[in-house]
Amino acid sequence: MLTQPTLLLNKAKCLANIERMANKARNANVVLRPHFKTHQSAEIGNWFKAHEVECITVSSIKMAVYFAQNGWTDITIAFPANIREWSTINELAAKINLNIVVESVETIKFLERHLTAPVGTYIKTDTGYGRTGIDAENYDGIQALLKELKTCKNLIFIGFLCHAGHTYNAGSKEDILQIMETSRQQLLALKTFMANDFPLIQISYGDTPSCSLSANYDGFDEIRPGNFVFYDTMQANLGSCSLDDIAVALACPVVSKHPERQEVVVHGGGVHLSKDYIIIDGQKYFGKAVTLEGNNWNCEQSLGSLAKVSQEHGIIKVPQEKFYQVNVGDMVAVLPVHSCLTANLMKRYLTTDGESIDMMR
Amino acid sequence: MLTQPTLLLNKAKCLANIERMANKARNANVVLRPHFKTHQSAEIGNWFKAHEVECITVSSIKMAVYFAQNGWTDITIAFPANIREWSTINELAAKINLNIVVESVETIKFLERHLTAPVGTYIKTDTGYGRTGIDAENYDGIQALLKELKTCKNLIFIGFLCHAGHTYNAGSKEDILQIMETSRQQLLALKTFMANDFPLIQISYGDTPSCSLSANYDGFDEIRPGNFVFYDTMQANLGSCSLDDIAVALACPVVSKHPERQEVVVHGGGVHLSKDYIIIDGQKYFGKAVTLEGNNWNCEQSLGSLAKVSQEHGIIKVPQEKFYQVNVGDMVAVLPVHSCLTANLMKRYLTTDGESIDMMR
Repeated sequence: MLTQPTLLLNKAKCLANIERMANKARNANVVLRPHFKTHQSAEIGNWFKAHEVECITVSSIKMAVYFAQNGWTDITIAFPANIREWSTINELAAKINLNIVVESVETIKFLERHLTAPVGTYIKTDTGYGRTGIDAENYDGIQALLKELKTCKNLIFIGFLCHAGHTYNAGSKEDILQIMETSRQQLLALKTFMANDFPLIQISYGDTPSCSLSANYDGFDEIRPGNFVFYDTMQANLGSCSLDDIAVALACPVVSKHPERQEVVVHGGGVHLSKDYIIIDGQKYFGKAVTLEGNNWNCEQSLGSLAKVSQEHGIIKVPQEKFYQVNVGDMVAVLPVHSCLTANLMKRYLTTDGESIDMMR
Repeated sequence: MLTQPTLLLNKAKCLANIERMANKARNANVVLRPHFKTHQSAEIGNWFKAHEVECITVSSIKMAVYFAQNGWTDITIAFPANIREWSTINELAAKINLNIVVESVETIKFLERHLTAPVGTYIKTDTGYGRTGIDAENYDGIQALLKELKTCKNLIFIGFLCHAGHTYNAGSKEDILQIMETSRQQLLALKTFMANDFPLIQISYGDTPSCSLSANYDGFDEIRPGNFVFYDTMQANLGSCSLDDIAVALACPVVSKHPERQEVVVHGGGVHLSKDYIIIDGQKYFGKAVTLEGNNWNCEQSLGSLAKVSQEHGIIKVPQEKFYQVNVGDMVAVLPVHSCLTANLMKRYLTTDGESIDMMR
């Protein structure tokens, strides 16, 4: 019996999510290099192998070490290379095919001086998200990086890597597809422009919203979505998935009810779900509460929205007609807003079949 | 040498924070029952013993088990009792003085049927925060709970417990002190009203902002602040502490610079700091970046504000005149917005003297 906040995983939904993306990539003849930062689990990683996935993406060197220890031999760290970790990069690069991401001449120069094994190198290219990377239209800047890379023995230039994270801020499916299209055009223009000097440039493209909504991966050599393995209510709200595709839910004990404000208090807060949120109808939204029987949630039986979270508390706004369906001592399920952060906090999954699955610590 | 995001702890500042609060409580002749959810560490817990602290507060049964295993024998779980965990409550209550918090007749009835050892019981009383607890002015509701508690053999009524969490939303120090005063008056009125039937009612009051800003604990039997052990920029912004009192900082490697938007990208994001934020001048604020030399930060050498965080990235807005002080490969320190959530994510401290300190896992 569940007694505490517990991260439930529906393996069948997760496997279906993996299969759907793997099939789309295969049909489009692009490599699926899934981002494993979402699940951070050796066992869940193994589920990709049935679809001949051999290359993966991670977001930190620590995560690369973990998956390398668990048998993965082709790993891209899709985060601007942290030059202070050069010795760990060397250790890893001596054992596996390791790819890193750079965006400055300083980083390239430093690593070339310190690396002792060849490392695949992408230039992080910004197609409008504005977080990291060199502007995809800044040809002078990109040429300066390429000029530097050309002199390197251990930094082996592969191509351009882009995360179109601004799809998360898009207002509609059409906007997401438009962002994908603009990114594609920018990356292809760049590739064409550089083709004389670098005829083998690869393009690595990522983000779950556009890779879910489109099957047109023309021009990309690989795609790097990650969140699709579980999805979440943020993705459902963007239209990237249905609620039924969401493969994780936090089981939460109901500890208190406040009929005067139609609120139910659960044990399930910022230390379980994270404090990430989206805005729906002008209100902060931290997740969707649905019914739970045993280890199985029913995404069609909504109980309300998670409207507030503090460290351990979650506050669910429950409509009048459902308020008396929920009692102190019940367990309810919360479909998280951001499954990557929820998984990272919970550090363990319990499948709906009762199997415990570990994660990186 | 620091290479990765690392949670630094200045032990001297932490000890000074503990001493200051312990002295205030002693001078006011109230018990300090500190909330250990902030540090979640057996070792840091031990630092309170020099001030004769014997009673502590935690926010979950799991945390109570951890601190009981580490020698604490008087623990209040300041979270509405989760009746599904009755068997763990029994195990704990057989070994230590355990106090729980109730706010409904259902919970009282259920626990009285299932408990096999006496458990101290507080009624959670809401003095205006509106998260949990029974409204402090709802005398009928409180009398219904008391009537039920009077029949109990194992739920031993102690008194009223209040967390005035609305101090965190206050606009000024005066507002915080006003909230404290209103809470005190409500709790004292309640105590007076019930004094004939319950002459020994205790009042347990919590929250770091008001316990820091005031030394007037009249009417309270104990205080339960927690965050003061480390403080953070949220508290500094409320005026509860100075920046120099903040005892933890996240060391972050600088991985990229974007002069065109005066942004520095660090490895230090939502999985390190949490996604909690405050609003300053209409902008989201996730922490304060300051200089770091070795393991020591200088809170007076500001580099800018942490303006955005994603899973692993932190984006620091650095003013023009300081932009060239920060280079790729440097480490900078981020004073977190919410140290409780940052500590919970990092799971380990490195003191500025180089000692590693573990936390609950």
